[in-house]
This record gives sequence, structure tokens and C-alpha cells, in this order.
Amino acid sequence: MKITTPTVLLNWATAKANIDRMADRAKRHGLHFRPHFKTHMSQEAGKYFRKIGVEAITVSSFTMAEYFSESGWKDITVAFPANVREVETINRLAESISLNLLAVNAESVSLLKNGLRYPAGIFIKIDVGTQRTGLLPDDEAGIDACLSAIETSNLLTFRGFLAHAGHSYRARSVEEVLKIHEETTGILRQLKEKYRPHFPELVIAPGDTPTCSVAETWDGVDEIRPGNFVFYDVMQVQIGACRMEDIAVALACPVVAKHADRHEVIVYGGGVHLSKDRLMWEGVEMYGLPVLLTEDGWEMPEAGCYVRSISQEHGVIRCSPSFFEKMEIGGLVGILPVHSCLTVDLTNEYLLTTGERWPKM
Amino acid sequence: MKITTPTVLLNWATAKANIDRMADRAKRHGLHFRPHFKTHMSQEAGKYFRKIGVEAITVSSFTMAEYFSESGWKDITVAFPANVREVETINRLAESISLNLLAVNAESVSLLKNGLRYPAGIFIKIDVGTQRTGLLPDDEAGIDACLSAIETSNLLTFRGFLAHAGHSYRARSVEEVLKIHEETTGILRQLKEKYRPHFPELVIAPGDTPTCSVAETWDGVDEIRPGNFVFYDVMQVQIGACRMEDIAVALACPVVAKHADRHEVIVYGGGVHLSKDRLMWEGVEMYGLPVLLTEDGWEMPEAGCYVRSISQEHGVIRCSPSFFEKMEIGGLVGILPVHSCLTVDLTNEYLLTTGERWPKM
Repeated sequence: MKITTPTVLLNWATAKANIDRMADRAKRHGLHFRPHFKTHMSQEAGKYFRKIGVEAITVSSFTMAEYFSESGWKDITVAFPANVREVETINRLAESISLNLLAVNAESVSLLKNGLRYPAGIFIKIDVGTQRTGLLPDDEAGIDACLSAIETSNLLTFRGFLAHAGHSYRARSVEEVLKIHEETTGILRQLKEKYRPHFPELVIAPGDTPTCSVAETWDGVDEIRPGNFVFYDVMQVQIGACRMEDIAVALACPVVAKHADRHEVIVYGGGVHLSKDRLMWEGVEMYGLPVLLTEDGWEMPEAGCYVRSISQEHGVIRCSPSFFEKMEIGGLVGILPVHSCLTVDLTNEYLLTTGERWPKM
Repeated sequence: MKITTPTVLLNWATAKANIDRMADRAKRHGLHFRPHFKTHMSQEAGKYFRKIGVEAITVSSFTMAEYFSESGWKDITVAFPANVREVETINRLAESISLNLLAVNAESVSLLKNGLRYPAGIFIKIDVGTQRTGLLPDDEAGIDACLSAIETSNLLTFRGFLAHAGHSYRARSVEEVLKIHEETTGILRQLKEKYRPHFPELVIAPGDTPTCSVAETWDGVDEIRPGNFVFYDVMQVQIGACRMEDIAVALACPVVAKHADRHEVIVYGGGVHLSKDRLMWEGVEMYGLPVLLTEDGWEMPEAGCYVRSISQEHGVIRCSPSFFEKMEIGGLVGILPVHSCLTVDLTNEYLLTTGERWPKM
């Protein structure tokens, strides 16, 4: 592999195994699988999902919806509170595909009604405890105001309740993840029971990667939307959602300096390549785990090695003595990302460990 | 201004004032001004520097060096440990412009010597206390090994000692910044005195934005390379390097949801637009300060308002009650970045507050 600058390596065999496993889980639990494509953002990766039978997807922006609609996706949920300033893009999409929007306030539903010229589905976002966005489950007035606004539109169709248990990312054990999962699905089931008499078609759709990776009870749930599971990352290992071997991406970085006095190496690979997402790991704050690159991928990380700090273009890697010995100026080292979504967002291209290159949104 | 998605607004009048002020400081102290262009990364912005007499610049990657050489810059220092894997790019640059490289280890000088086909200057990087990279000032053996490797090359010319007092970013008062400045310039002056007999042309070149913004004693220093000062940011306000009024960029974000129970609004504008650099501010960790946008810029931030959290596309803004009242779904709000370099890196374009659009690297 001829790598001269920081490059996102993709082990596609590992990613495919992650996809197969999640698709199997969805099938086994009778869940509609609407994977979130915000992590890989790749039309090429999308082709494999279609091959295994996936027909509907999730994205996090209208720009991303357009990118995937261009490669033939016809059923897309934009799981982000509808940005009414993009009404032209929304109409372009709604004209040509089955588009689902997301609402949190009756006010935004009203604004959508004013601007929409083609039919679209709409979910109501429920805050199941993350405190990012969404209506609180007991905010009956808020939910009913949204529903009234939707019902008086001749273009919007209510699809159901959508939730993202983002607080599962703060969990640090499978037990914690499962507790959040029980709460989330319990909340959504209650809403389903309450509103189904009036909206018999409504679905409930949670779907963060941690709960989707480990939960085995999905009574009443209709659809899941995990995204990060395609590549996973060190955060997901810490949460208990995957094994280190399941991580499918690594940032390959040129080694540009060595500091023997502190067993640290400097790599070309900083915040503009890796992002600044961080994690407490073995008692220290770190920005990724260094790994040795091999012919067809990378080895597992070694204890005592981590990215200690990053600035715009620099990464500082603390090494164990034996790992330090293996580092050579002019060589490469891999970094397993703390948060693959943000690392991958910063590249325009994947280099597959098989040598192929895939463009990315 | 027709803004539909997160957009970097640039108040170019403010930026020009920042540039003029720094150029005046350099002139007043007899310093060669070699501004770092890694913050703005804009050929358009570069034109103004040329207009006021700047002829030499600094960048942080060879990719950036090529981008600026394309717009006519002929004297460029790449202030990052030379990445020998990019030897083809290095040769392309060295053939056509006056290029300065950076070395930390004798090993990388040797590798450069093997690959270089055109003349280039080279600085030795000194670690003045940041503990990122650079040779320790008292590492005589390391410095001499680098110098020997340089002297036995017929293409490399030793330029001097370069330092970046990056630990000034951790300072939280002008006094602390000035203390770091005295230490840094003291270290570099000692090296200059020691090596000048053998290298009469050598220069010493520090140049982080905090020290360059406030220090008034520059005895013996030859060159400065600040970069962030063009736009500044909230971190620089906290350090004491600028005033809030000097910040020249803001991220304009569509407001997509309101949460009256917690006085928070959700904006389209997350980690992929703002970066995840963070700061302790008024006792809380935050990711930026919200501001009201005006016809030709933005107002100053209000107490009690800050970006509480960000995920991939979402920003969660905590508002004071009065600020919350002014937020409208479908409207816009500005965010002053914690760290403008990383925020600006994430955009391909500036929207000037005068309405013009400038492309960016």
C-alpha cells in the first residue's frame, strides 16, 4: 500500500461481518432493518446492504439523502429535526423518493406544511433520556399538538415514534446498555399502545448501535436504525457493544518523529484527520489506540499504548517500550479511532485493505 | 444572506484589522513576519497579506504548501516534522519555490538527503516546554547529530531553530503567556549564541498566537509565525490574546428545535461542522458561544448562553431566558468557535458578512 498522508483504511471483510450479524439479529427478532448510513457515507458500501435485502435507510442530513438517492435508494428517513430552511431540497427528494421527516415541535410541522409540495412521511422524535432533542414521553400536550398539525396536512403522513437512546454511549457495561434498552422500548411501547387506536399503522423505531448490538428482547418494536455498527470503534468496545477485532477502520499515519526519552512518536495525523473525540481508557484520557499495520490489515492494540494528545496535524502516541522499538521514522502506524463516525467524516476516500479505493461523500 | 445549512461566516473587516495589528507589531519589533496560513487556508485571504508586503509564509502540510504555491507564494516553511513519505511532493515544491523543512531527528534528515533532488532550507525544531515534538534545548548530542547530517548534504541548508510554544494555549492570563514567552525566547537566544559562530546566518523563530499577540520584548528574535490571530476564537479570549470583538468567524446554524422546559435550542451544526474542541467557560465545559446574527455580522455573546453538547450533526445550545425567547425554529443563530482553526478546516467555503463567497482549501 503506497500511503503518503493520513489515510482511512477499511477492512471490508470485517465490516461485512458486522453488517451480516446486525441484519441477522434484526431478522431473528422480526425487526425492520433501516440502517443508518451516516457512519460509512459510501455508495459502494451501500451496494452490499442492497445485496442482502435492505431497501430502506436512515441518514442524518438532506445532503446525505440526496447523495444516496443518486445511487438508487428510494426509501429514506432523515433522522434529524427537519430543517425547514432546506425546503427546496426536501421537495426535490419528496418528489422522487419515499421520504420520512422528523418533528420535535408543532411549529416546525406548521412550517413544513407551508413549504411542502409533495407527500412525505413524518416521525415524532421522543426523548428517551438522552436530553439531546425530542418530546418528553409524558408531554401529552406537545405530542398532541404535533399530531394535530400533521393530521391537518394533506401531504404529511404520521409514521410513528422515533427515538435514539444516545445515553447508551455513556454506558460502560452491557448491563447498563440493557437497562437503557428496557427503558427506551418500554417508553415507546406505551406510546404505541396509546396512539395505535387512532393511527393503526404507526411504528416505533429506536436504534442506537449499543442497544442493537446486545439486546435480545424487542417485543413490540417495529424498526431499528443503528449506524456505527458497520465499523464500530474503541468507544463501542468500552461500552461492550463489540470486540476489538470487530473494528473495521484504522487511520494509517506516517511516523515523522521519535522521542526516546518519553517513548513517544509523532505522527502526521491530528484533529483534522481523527477528530477530537476522546475516551478515558486504562485510567488516561486518549484519542485513539495505535496498532501495527500488516499486509492485510492490523494487529490488535498493545497495553500501555495510546494517542496521548492531538493538535491540528500532529498526533502524539505514547508507546510501551517494545512498541516504541517497532516504530520507524518514515514508516506507518495505524490508529483505531475513539469514534469512527467523526474520523470517517474527515476523509473523502477509503483505502480498502485489499488495495481498492472507494470514494466517500 | 440565504443560508440553508451550517455556514462559516467571515467578518473580513475584523480579520483585516487583526492582520494589520500583527503586521504592525512585527514591524515595530523588527521581526520578519512569516504568518502561518493553516488557519484561514484561503488563497483569497492570502492576497491581502501580499498587499501589505508579506512575502514569506508558513503552512503545516505539503498539501497546503502546494495549494499556496499555486497562487504565487514562493517562500514557504512547512512547520511540521518533514514527512519523508511525501518526497515526490517535496521535490516538486523544492524545484519551484524556496522551501524550508523541519527536522526533529537526525534519522529523518538522512532520509531526506536520500530522497531530495533540489535545494531546500531546514530548521531544527526545539521543544520549549510543550512536549509535543522538538529536540530538548539541552540535548546537545541530538542537535549536533541533526546539524552534522544537514552539513554533509549538498542540498540542505541549515536555517535555524524553530519553536512553537503550544503550552501558551493552556495559559489563562497575559501574565502566564508572558512567562512562557520569556522562557521560549530565552531558550532560543541561548541556542543562537551557541551556534551562530558556526552558522552566522541562522535565525530563531518562535511564533504562537498568544505570545505574538501580547509580548513586547523580542530581543534577538528574528522571525514570528502566528496563524490563529487572523480569526482568533473564544479560547484566545480566555487566554487574554484578544477581545471578543476581534473574533472574525462564526458558524451560522439553522435552529431546528426548541425545548422550553430546559431553555435549550437544537441547531443543525455539530461535530462535523464545529469540531469537538472544548473549553471550561464560566464554570462549565462548552463547545462554542451562541450569538445573535445581524445584517452585517453578529452581536456579542450573552452571559449564561453556551453550546452545551454536540454530536455528529446536532448542537445543543443552553440559553438564558431572554436569549431563548429570541430563538425561532427556521431562524439562524451564530456560534463563536472555541478553536477557529478546526472549525474552519471543516468547511470548503467562507460566506463573508458582505455577501461574497470565498473558496477554501
